[in-house]
Amino acid sequence: MDALFKVVDDNLDRILEELKTFLRLESISADPARKQATADTAGWLAEHLKHIGMAHVEVFPTEGHPLVFAHHPGPADAPTVLIYGHYDVQPVDPLELWTTPPFEPTIRDGKIYARGTTDDKGQLFAHVKALETLLREKGELPVSVKLIFEGEEEIGSGALGKWLPDHKDLLTCDLVVVSDSSMIAKGQPSIQYGLRGLVYFQVEVEGPSGDLHSGSFGGAVANPINVLADILASMKDENNKVTLPGFYDDVLPLTDEELANYDKLPYDEAEFLQATGAEATFGEAGFTSLQRMSARPTLDANGIWGGFQGEGAKTVLPAKAGLKVSMRLVPNQDPHKIADAFRAHIAKVAPPAARVKVIEFHGGLPFICPLDEPALQKAAAALKTVYGKDCLFSREGGSIPIVADINAALHQPVVLMGFGLNSENAHAPNEHFDLENFVGAIKTSLTYLHLLAEK
Amino acid sequence: MDALFKVVDDNLDRILEELKTFLRLESISADPARKQATADTAGWLAEHLKHIGMAHVEVFPTEGHPLVFAHHPGPADAPTVLIYGHYDVQPVDPLELWTTPPFEPTIRDGKIYARGTTDDKGQLFAHVKALETLLREKGELPVSVKLIFEGEEEIGSGALGKWLPDHKDLLTCDLVVVSDSSMIAKGQPSIQYGLRGLVYFQVEVEGPSGDLHSGSFGGAVANPINVLADILASMKDENNKVTLPGFYDDVLPLTDEELANYDKLPYDEAEFLQATGAEATFGEAGFTSLQRMSARPTLDANGIWGGFQGEGAKTVLPAKAGLKVSMRLVPNQDPHKIADAFRAHIAKVAPPAARVKVIEFHGGLPFICPLDEPALQKAAAALKTVYGKDCLFSREGGSIPIVADINAALHQPVVLMGFGLNSENAHAPNEHFDLENFVGAIKTSLTYLHLLAEK
Repeated sequence: MDALFKVVDDNLDRILEELKTFLRLESISADPARKQATADTAGWLAEHLKHIGMAHVEVFPTEGHPLVFAHHPGPADAPTVLIYGHYDVQPVDPLELWTTPPFEPTIRDGKIYARGTTDDKGQLFAHVKALETLLREKGELPVSVKLIFEGEEEIGSGALGKWLPDHKDLLTCDLVVVSDSSMIAKGQPSIQYGLRGLVYFQVEVEGPSGDLHSGSFGGAVANPINVLADILASMKDENNKVTLPGFYDDVLPLTDEELANYDKLPYDEAEFLQATGAEATFGEAGFTSLQRMSARPTLDANGIWGGFQGEGAKTVLPAKAGLKVSMRLVPNQDPHKIADAFRAHIAKVAPPAARVKVIEFHGGLPFICPLDEPALQKAAAALKTVYGKDCLFSREGGSIPIVADINAALHQPVVLMGFGLNSENAHAPNEHFDLENFVGAIKTSLTYLHLLAEK
Repeated sequence: MDALFKVVDDNLDRILEELKTFLRLESISADPARKQATADTAGWLAEHLKHIGMAHVEVFPTEGHPLVFAHHPGPADAPTVLIYGHYDVQPVDPLELWTTPPFEPTIRDGKIYARGTTDDKGQLFAHVKALETLLREKGELPVSVKLIFEGEEEIGSGALGKWLPDHKDLLTCDLVVVSDSSMIAKGQPSIQYGLRGLVYFQVEVEGPSGDLHSGSFGGAVANPINVLADILASMKDENNKVTLPGFYDDVLPLTDEELANYDKLPYDEAEFLQATGAEATFGEAGFTSLQRMSARPTLDANGIWGGFQGEGAKTVLPAKAGLKVSMRLVPNQDPHKIADAFRAHIAKVAPPAARVKVIEFHGGLPFICPLDEPALQKAAAALKTVYGKDCLFSREGGSIPIVADINAALHQPVVLMGFGLNSENAHAPNEHFDLENFVGAIKTSLTYLHLLAEK
């Protein structure tokens, strides 16, 4: 591998110039005014994939932004790896907080600054440059490689989600690699082998048909805010366990191996409290904060409203109140089953004197890749080769619905190999990507493709 | 009395013209642009009181709107009655919903339309016209009469509340009469012998110092909305009883006589549900709706807010949430004691992981006049004389803090003898006052003053 690593190092200036070209393309998927720019980005990426020698490259138009697909066959008996990434980026507001403009890539202090550097153009491009290095130096790849790069990750992956079920054959593979997340700390390689799922509801309670005087009517009419508070409070017990019937039935308990892994993860309580501004940690009895944030399901209100929100006192008995509440789910909870339990619980506890409406928003499946999965172990080995340190295994508390969807559609393991850092302002001004990690990502990808070829 | 009643009837045209003059004065206490108009109204009223022959009339300037005081001594051994009223009126918006302009009094279908007709200029003026009739026809009053008319009832009675403690001697009396409320139904005389008090709080909960991602942090940090819902829900039990320690300790239970009175009050459940738009009545176990709305204390949220209130789903773990919550109190609950219990309860149930701030707004004392109070019984007799029907006794669910304050300051019974109707749009466009009740009020006042003179 050292010869290939040297090629990467020797070509770094050119590679960075190419990355800058990619970063200059203003592929903000949420911005209708950038629809053409986003399509142009897909076009540039497809051309670049042809340019590095991928055998088959295709752009799939969609109702939204295009999908870029590519394929290069490896040896007949080698596995096929599907690499996922996204070429679209977040909006750039507030523009005035950027030290250098978001679409004028600039290198400072060993980091490259621009919108999309760490999320996800830079990480995606590292794989492309690994493939280029192999195709140029060896004329072939050690495994078959398919690429699927979407342009709507930042707006919900709608087009890919729609396209996926009809193109499973095209994407047939033995494993999926996603580099769209973060390492646990700089210099410390890590793999996120689990993601939480999500169910999200809006609950609306109506009492009287209009606001009433709380003096004249208070006591004889159901108060929507009180009813809503009762409903929400009834969903957790004094140990901060969720009380929905069957809620924990399908939760995969942490194995001894996972518990040992959690113990290895860096966590400092004082630092956590400092970062969040919380007075103390708080959560489900019997679990650590790291476990609560990633391996345990939660129920959190996301918003609430009703009645008088202004200054001072108004003695109103409000006509209605509303709540947004969501649950993060863990493997193997089923969002549909949990949603049913949620609705059934509300139907049971809501008083007949109030009208309660439950609206469900789009959620997502939880995801897990078994720790003994060879593709995961090889990824860890590749990271160790490049970073010189044992890889840590963590679960991510957030949800990446498209990962769970790909996993569910293709029935193959997904390896989340993130090279970003949490400090890199992924969705904020001055987004950047550490160049050591950019190079590390190229070298890890090179190494990984070779390890995957090994029987 | 018939001769006096005939004088009233014979002079009605003139009396109505005078009332119209009073109603044309734009005494909107809340409107800084009407400060002079409000002062002019006080001046006009004082002049009118001199004109009808009140022995002593005085206008007390205040930091806000003036107070109008008058006194006319009766026979040496007669009691002194203090009549309270207010000459200020509510704002008139939305102006376009008035059939005739709010300050152009108009008579239609036996009702007089203008801002202030029923609340409270018309009711106040009925007493003035009773006094005028007596002074003109008899040259004297059967009892000593003091009048106190304020100009800030619609904005919280601040000036009178401040002035009262220093002028107790001036107001010394044997009973207080207030005509600033409603009869229970047209043609059915009634007296409100109780009012609820009020304590009003804002509760603010802070968790993290800024909004957090509910995926990355959910489960390990106290969620201010969940905490707030827990606090609110913990304040009532499954029987809709308030759980604050000692909350019911001082509540005067309804006597058998009161229970019998409640049974006589008109109440139709279907009509109540129709009027409120509620699906069903709802409240403290063991009490009827009428009792719950007037003789029982309550705890109602008046407003709540926190997190994301927009369209769709946002997976935020909010930094803070707020609640407005108030309790209606009944005799003999002590607002200070209840406020202390409220704060102590929150201190006990709020988790240390959240910062909770409790802000108390201005409240008020509950009020009750004993049913066997002679001044009350004579008021009932006067109403029966004029309306030909037994008077009903009810308690009002709302709070009129100044009534409780006067009661507490003067240590004399207060008789709430209301001649308005709930349908008269007191705080809304097209406010009006039924002329039969205006005349009935004059005649009841005449009768009452005579009955009070009887030993």
